[in-house]
Amino acid sequence: MSLLIRNGEIVTPDSRYCADIFCEGETITRIGRGLEAPPEAEVIDAQGKYVFPGFIDPHVHVYLPFSGTFTRDTYQTASRAALLGGTTCFIDFISPTNKEDLLESVFIWHGKAAGQSACDYTFHMTVPRWDSGAESQLREIVASGIPSFKVYLAYKSSTGLDDPGLFHTLKLAKELGVVVASHCENATIVEELQRQFIRSGQTGPEWHYWTRPPLVEAEGVNHLLTFAELHGTHTYIVHTSCREALEAAVRARRRGVQTWIETCIHYLLLDKTRAEQGGFEAAKYVISPPLRDKDQQADLWLALRDGVISTLATDHAPTDFATQKALGKDDFTKITNGVPGIEDRINLLYTYGVCPGKIDLHTFVDVASTQPAKIFGMFPRKGAIQPGGDADLVIYDPNFKGTISAKMHSMNVDYNAYEGREILGRPDTVTVRGQVAVRNGVFTGSCTHGRFVKRDPSHF
Amino acid sequence: MSLLIRNGEIVTPDSRYCADIFCEGETITRIGRGLEAPPEAEVIDAQGKYVFPGFIDPHVHVYLPFSGTFTRDTYQTASRAALLGGTTCFIDFISPTNKEDLLESVFIWHGKAAGQSACDYTFHMTVPRWDSGAESQLREIVASGIPSFKVYLAYKSSTGLDDPGLFHTLKLAKELGVVVASHCENATIVEELQRQFIRSGQTGPEWHYWTRPPLVEAEGVNHLLTFAELHGTHTYIVHTSCREALEAAVRARRRGVQTWIETCIHYLLLDKTRAEQGGFEAAKYVISPPLRDKDQQADLWLALRDGVISTLATDHAPTDFATQKALGKDDFTKITNGVPGIEDRINLLYTYGVCPGKIDLHTFVDVASTQPAKIFGMFPRKGAIQPGGDADLVIYDPNFKGTISAKMHSMNVDYNAYEGREILGRPDTVTVRGQVAVRNGVFTGSCTHGRFVKRDPSHF
Amino acid sequence: MSLLIRNGEIVTPDSRYCADIFCEGETITRIGRGLEAPPEAEVIDAQGKYVFPGFIDPHVHVYLPFSGTFTRDTYQTASRAALLGGTTCFIDFISPTNKEDLLESVFIWHGKAAGQSACDYTFHMTVPRWDSGAESQLREIVASGIPSFKVYLAYKSSTGLDDPGLFHTLKLAKELGVVVASHCENATIVEELQRQFIRSGQTGPEWHYWTRPPLVEAEGVNHLLTFAELHGTHTYIVHTSCREALEAAVRARRRGVQTWIETCIHYLLLDKTRAEQGGFEAAKYVISPPLRDKDQQADLWLALRDGVISTLATDHAPTDFATQKALGKDDFTKITNGVPGIEDRINLLYTYGVCPGKIDLHTFVDVASTQPAKIFGMFPRKGAIQPGGDADLVIYDPNFKGTISAKMHSMNVDYNAYEGREILGRPDTVTVRGQVAVRNGVFTGSCTHGRFVKRDPSHF
Amino acid sequence: MSLLIRNGEIVTPDSRYCADIFCEGETITRIGRGLEAPPEAEVIDAQGKYVFPGFIDPHVHVYLPFSGTFTRDTYQTASRAALLGGTTCFIDFISPTNKEDLLESVFIWHGKAAGQSACDYTFHMTVPRWDSGAESQLREIVASGIPSFKVYLAYKSSTGLDDPGLFHTLKLAKELGVVVASHCENATIVEELQRQFIRSGQTGPEWHYWTRPPLVEAEGVNHLLTFAELHGTHTYIVHTSCREALEAAVRARRRGVQTWIETCIHYLLLDKTRAEQGGFEAAKYVISPPLRDKDQQADLWLALRDGVISTLATDHAPTDFATQKALGKDDFTKITNGVPGIEDRINLLYTYGVCPGKIDLHTFVDVASTQPAKIFGMFPRKGAIQPGGDADLVIYDPNFKGTISAKMHSMNVDYNAYEGREILGRPDTVTVRGQVAVRNGVFTGSCTHGRFVKRDPSHF
Repeated sequence: MSLLIRNGEIVTPDSRYCADIFCEGETITRIGRGLEAPPEAEVIDAQGKYVFPGFIDPHVHVYLPFSGTFTRDTYQTASRAALLGGTTCFIDFISPTNKEDLLESVFIWHGKAAGQSACDYTFHMTVPRWDSGAESQLREIVASGIPSFKVYLAYKSSTGLDDPGLFHTLKLAKELGVVVASHCENATIVEELQRQFIRSGQTGPEWHYWTRPPLVEAEGVNHLLTFAELHGTHTYIVHTSCREALEAAVRARRRGVQTWIETCIHYLLLDKTRAEQGGFEAAKYVISPPLRDKDQQADLWLALRDGVISTLATDHAPTDFATQKALGKDDFTKITNGVPGIEDRINLLYTYGVCPGKIDLHTFVDVASTQPAKIFGMFPRKGAIQPGGDADLVIYDPNFKGTISAKMHSMNVDYNAYEGREILGRPDTVTVRGQVAVRNGVFTGSCTHGRFVKRDPSHF
Repeated sequence: MSLLIRNGEIVTPDSRYCADIFCEGETITRIGRGLEAPPEAEVIDAQGKYVFPGFIDPHVHVYLPFSGTFTRDTYQTASRAALLGGTTCFIDFISPTNKEDLLESVFIWHGKAAGQSACDYTFHMTVPRWDSGAESQLREIVASGIPSFKVYLAYKSSTGLDDPGLFHTLKLAKELGVVVASHCENATIVEELQRQFIRSGQTGPEWHYWTRPPLVEAEGVNHLLTFAELHGTHTYIVHTSCREALEAAVRARRRGVQTWIETCIHYLLLDKTRAEQGGFEAAKYVISPPLRDKDQQADLWLALRDGVISTLATDHAPTDFATQKALGKDDFTKITNGVPGIEDRINLLYTYGVCPGKIDLHTFVDVASTQPAKIFGMFPRKGAIQPGGDADLVIYDPNFKGTISAKMHSMNVDYNAYEGREILGRPDTVTVRGQVAVRNGVFTGSCTHGRFVKRDPSHF
Repeated sequence: MSLLIRNGEIVTPDSRYCADIFCEGETITRIGRGLEAPPEAEVIDAQGKYVFPGFIDPHVHVYLPFSGTFTRDTYQTASRAALLGGTTCFIDFISPTNKEDLLESVFIWHGKAAGQSACDYTFHMTVPRWDSGAESQLREIVASGIPSFKVYLAYKSSTGLDDPGLFHTLKLAKELGVVVASHCENATIVEELQRQFIRSGQTGPEWHYWTRPPLVEAEGVNHLLTFAELHGTHTYIVHTSCREALEAAVRARRRGVQTWIETCIHYLLLDKTRAEQGGFEAAKYVISPPLRDKDQQADLWLALRDGVISTLATDHAPTDFATQKALGKDDFTKITNGVPGIEDRINLLYTYGVCPGKIDLHTFVDVASTQPAKIFGMFPRKGAIQPGGDADLVIYDPNFKGTISAKMHSMNVDYNAYEGREILGRPDTVTVRGQVAVRNGVFTGSCTHGRFVKRDPSHF
Repeated sequence: MSLLIRNGEIVTPDSRYCADIFCEGETITRIGRGLEAPPEAEVIDAQGKYVFPGFIDPHVHVYLPFSGTFTRDTYQTASRAALLGGTTCFIDFISPTNKEDLLESVFIWHGKAAGQSACDYTFHMTVPRWDSGAESQLREIVASGIPSFKVYLAYKSSTGLDDPGLFHTLKLAKELGVVVASHCENATIVEELQRQFIRSGQTGPEWHYWTRPPLVEAEGVNHLLTFAELHGTHTYIVHTSCREALEAAVRARRRGVQTWIETCIHYLLLDKTRAEQGGFEAAKYVISPPLRDKDQQADLWLALRDGVISTLATDHAPTDFATQKALGKDDFTKITNGVPGIEDRINLLYTYGVCPGKIDLHTFVDVASTQPAKIFGMFPRKGAIQPGGDADLVIYDPNFKGTISAKMHSMNVDYNAYEGREILGRPDTVTVRGQVAVRNGVFTGSCTHGRFVKRDPSHF
């Protein structure tokens, strides 16, 4: 089967031009003007539209047991939502707690995804503890195509890794050429403050922020990068929310430490006042790290523009407001953390970043596609538009106008954190390895088409 | 006429793949695997070689009257050397002094270049003074396709611009969407220190450094960016040599100031001890800003790697050692400043940056081709490999081994600052808008093929 | 004549104790418990009160011709107001413009002060230009007991010094052991912005701020300290108003540059909104640098507390609102700059700094007395309470409560910038070299008692 | 008994004058010129000498069980050495391990000191763990006159405090007005690196440094100050050795965190090369944090000069080279850490700080006497020369010349880290609460005169 996309304006981080793209099977084979298609080829006219490389969300939770419940999405629902939003590949987290077997967890996550996903996917491997058993399993897991670790400096009692574990995980990562993604918040401070607030009767969602102020996140970043510098390990700071954390990372870079910084779409567009509104509605906006003061947003946009922040993710965490967030009605520490976002990331970044000129189109593609691919070893197979690359393409209609609403979205969750927001532009057509999965904004794909992306270590 | 380049490994900042490139006339029209060429097409086999977009040197002086003499290169010699070194386009500076007519200078430079260059070229317009005549001429010059200014904070008596002039030039630049390149060194300090040294009999080249220490450069950067911030003007800091200057620029960026930073190949590879060696030989290394302490180099490499520095230039300034540098035998302030470099920039950056892993191949292309094109309004016509783009291509042989020597080089100057350095790799074949100008490392081009690249303002 | 002050609580930067102070003639000769006084001695009971060393205001303008008018105070009125406010010595500025003879100016200022002042005084020497005449006169002036210079980076057309002048003034200062006080604002930016605003009809006092934003002040500091670093000259940054300027100074210190930072009481207590209120009343608050955003105040208080800022001054500039500030009714650039403050500085700093715990009593004395004495070569004759020191003492009543009002103040000016502010504490008794000048809050001194304090260079 | 010290030049942080000091019993009662002494008074002529307040060493270990051995000094030997070196009061550390009873430890330390010390002393209370028993005991200990805590972020297995303990200790400290002194090095990194080095056969003292590089100390400072900021607790960073740690502290101060910084005399005068010399002699210089690169020293001196560092201590740790340091012959981690210094601190600081002009006399007194007294609640009883203050005085002879040698020193330890260093000046006469303890450089005091200094919390 072959596919010809005609007359689109191709935009990547380092190119912008009108040309046709010819795909054979799963692969782009030719780019040029006036390409001829064989008679059997499907031809799509992209005139007046952008053609972007498929977007990659480097930080999502599709299957995640936590706080005694589960995220609502399945790979079927999540991948469909992802594709409708222009995301053709995402990275989920295999998340064993410190009591669970690592390899078994890998099997569980593969089991949830295999044959169930409409888009491609891959995994980060959470390291919740360190011992010799863990070490040999991790070597095996990396060899199986999962060369990125995740460590939590927070959540000591479940997935959190202690300092000796951090030391050895980073050491192994360096040896194996593995990037270590890290959730940087000091666990002890958060836990002690939570106890203190709850004990004093401050139980509503508006207190969540105060148990995780910016300095707690900045401390985490400084802590991680100190350990990383010792070994020369490459790290990746997930969901960076504030200038204090940015500064800690930038300071380390100036000493030669190699670290990438991720932020999430909600830190760019939502702020702390959401969680301070009266009533339990605020629980929808309980995320960790918390939404910050509004004036932090300008710093994050600048850092995106200047390349200080490398990637824009979602930390997609689909739990229902009515039944799951509600578990924390009387105790904000029991509110399931996170917001869903996989479906809206690209449209929001385009509408609120590109349209008002905060970032340009090249940066847009870079932070949402090319950089995730490069950092996590999928480039140039993904994150690029080039002959030989996977035909993951997004034909984007900049003339579309719409409104975000939970009523209309495809994510399996009962609210949308961006309810009512206007959208200027959307993916019109989306392909995954040559197969059309979205047409005219409607899902037409197959939930068996998506594949696990086996990755190689980087040996930086 | 058409050209097919087969089987090369194409590398740009955001792609890396093996494919064929087909060029018709001056333009790339098709990229893909297994492309067929029409019978009349020239076919070049690039198997085992890289294919890069033509490199762009954003900072060269081909024709430059200064200190009562002239740079030795003509457009013929400089463009030939550029092409042998993989540079298919450079930006020269129209450099009237504050007593010369601006428009007339434009004609002079066009006159030196037109019909004399084997590669493409364009100009920055130096603004040596501000008055109403200057303003209207500058509007005309921008409209004629030269939308970038150069200002000198140093050299008060010749090309230097005073503070009111700086204020108004930056204001006009903002209005017109023009980037302002700036030489950032405080003029007064340099002049007073020069007088002081000469008066006290310290007249040798080893004193040059001490009249322009890093803090003088950092002050210049801070000064420029303060003025630029007031107007929101986009600026470009040329030949940044030290961490002190980098830090001043980074601080401004964090406040939202948009500035790009350039460094030159000599700051990465040569250090202050060159100018401190006994004897007048040191004069070869008299450059402004001066070569710095060796430990500055690591900071510059890091900043290149992390995208803090955007471009790598040469500040190519070809004056003979024997007759021109020699003018300063008894007075280092009369040594003609600068080093030649246009021929060696790419090979040096590849050999001493890419090969030891200080930067990767993508960054290599970015800083030496794509970023200069983007910043100065030539992208994506240049600086990219895409259908519709100019067929400026460098087929680079990573297996070549050679040694730099003035005896062998093509630049019209009697010494080479990198004499004896080993080179690992070189441009094998180079094309300028579809015409082969270098074949097997030998110049085969025509000195009438190069054209002035008319550029549009950016209206950031 | 002798004087015994009994039972007060003596507080200096490094001591706090109850003891008696015995003064003979102009000098403290003994400190101890249960001192006996000779029968003819005057005895003052200071029980329940603090005894501080006489406060020193390092930055006042008593006599100052500017913008075609004169400050309203005479040495009689200003010194009386100073003493009522606890200030026993101040430093005025000899302020020739760049067209006036330096030595002649010295004579003029001596003439205004000699025999007219109730408190002691000394001068900074403004250097408005540099030439060989200036140099030799400055040597003479320093030798006459005036070893501190003032330079203006602003006000190019009157007292402003150009860059070559700055270079040579700092060089001479280093040679002579002279501290250089500097007004740090870039002259060109201010002038150009003023022209721009006036031209566009923005003529009210609310535009003053926007012609001198924080970055203009920070640029001035960076500029000064770059020049100072070259020579190793010790500098003193007057009336620092914002964190941007503080940071520039702190950065230089970390490189080893010796600089002291002064702020003024109005930057701690008043903010930009004063000048933004409707109507011309705002003109009362037109000062340079301008009052800043309210959130700047916390940074200044912290810097005072931590010793980053060394001194607290007034920049006392008494011009009438009705007739002088009014000159700028139609053009804010013609509003006489500055606020009066010499009478209220100490009470305000005590009430709004010490009482709420922002600084402690030791820091209070340090920044308002001891540091000015040390930096400007009057220590330990002044700024200390020790045998052999001048008997300049302030017996301070912490139980007094009052309200500031122009109706009641002694300064010869028709408004008070702190109108209506409550005061907790005031000088009850003040002595100048052993003579009581204020008793029970009432001026009882003599306007012929004050003397010029001849100072020696510091030869740091 | 009374004592009159005549004609000395008294120097404190804020005064410098010639006067007589009269002491009655333990107390200074009068300061003045030409004081008369009663017939029975002892009169000491200090003509040509300085009179300083008794120096205070805020960080010494006299009695300390560690690594299975004990420091060699007793209170008798240590206090004698202290006095010969001008130190009239020191602060030892009560150092229970996490398995020992806190109150019992207090008794043990009191038992070692009571009636055995020639100079005054007080204690910091180490908090090696947190539980409800600890909390109530700490309240009792503070109430007993020990209002300063010490926490170790290093040494997890013995005195180190974990993060929850740190959180609660800082919280209690805030409540009680207690300053928390902290050893800031990340425990895990040190331990893991030690294991790594030993395992790989790198067992000599030259490897000690590499297990505790500057970033490990800086991480500790950042960690501590993050926790302290949450509670508003005042902290004190002991033995700061490098600019990286200084910068972490300065950053926190700019956010409003109140912290004081201590450095030790060995970081100012000795460097890393000591521990790198061949042979086991290097073990003499094994200290934690380790001696640093020589270029760190300039940063520390600057920070002392500018008040960024508040105190200069010794971390006196007297263990013999031959028998105790030797325990680590085959394993550097078993070398007893630390150097003796209590006897030489003042003379070294005077000789190598004041004499070459790195700091002035006022700063000298401030960092070695007044600041320790202020920070730890002994001021103005100690650290000042004022009526009512303890008559702890040092008559210092600036004309003395000598050489440091273990053969001559009084400390009970078999080597001196400053062996062979010249000394310019020494304490000629030293008094402790009115009693002469050193005369003409010879110890004449009594080992029963020293007393425990009971201190009150600060309630900052």
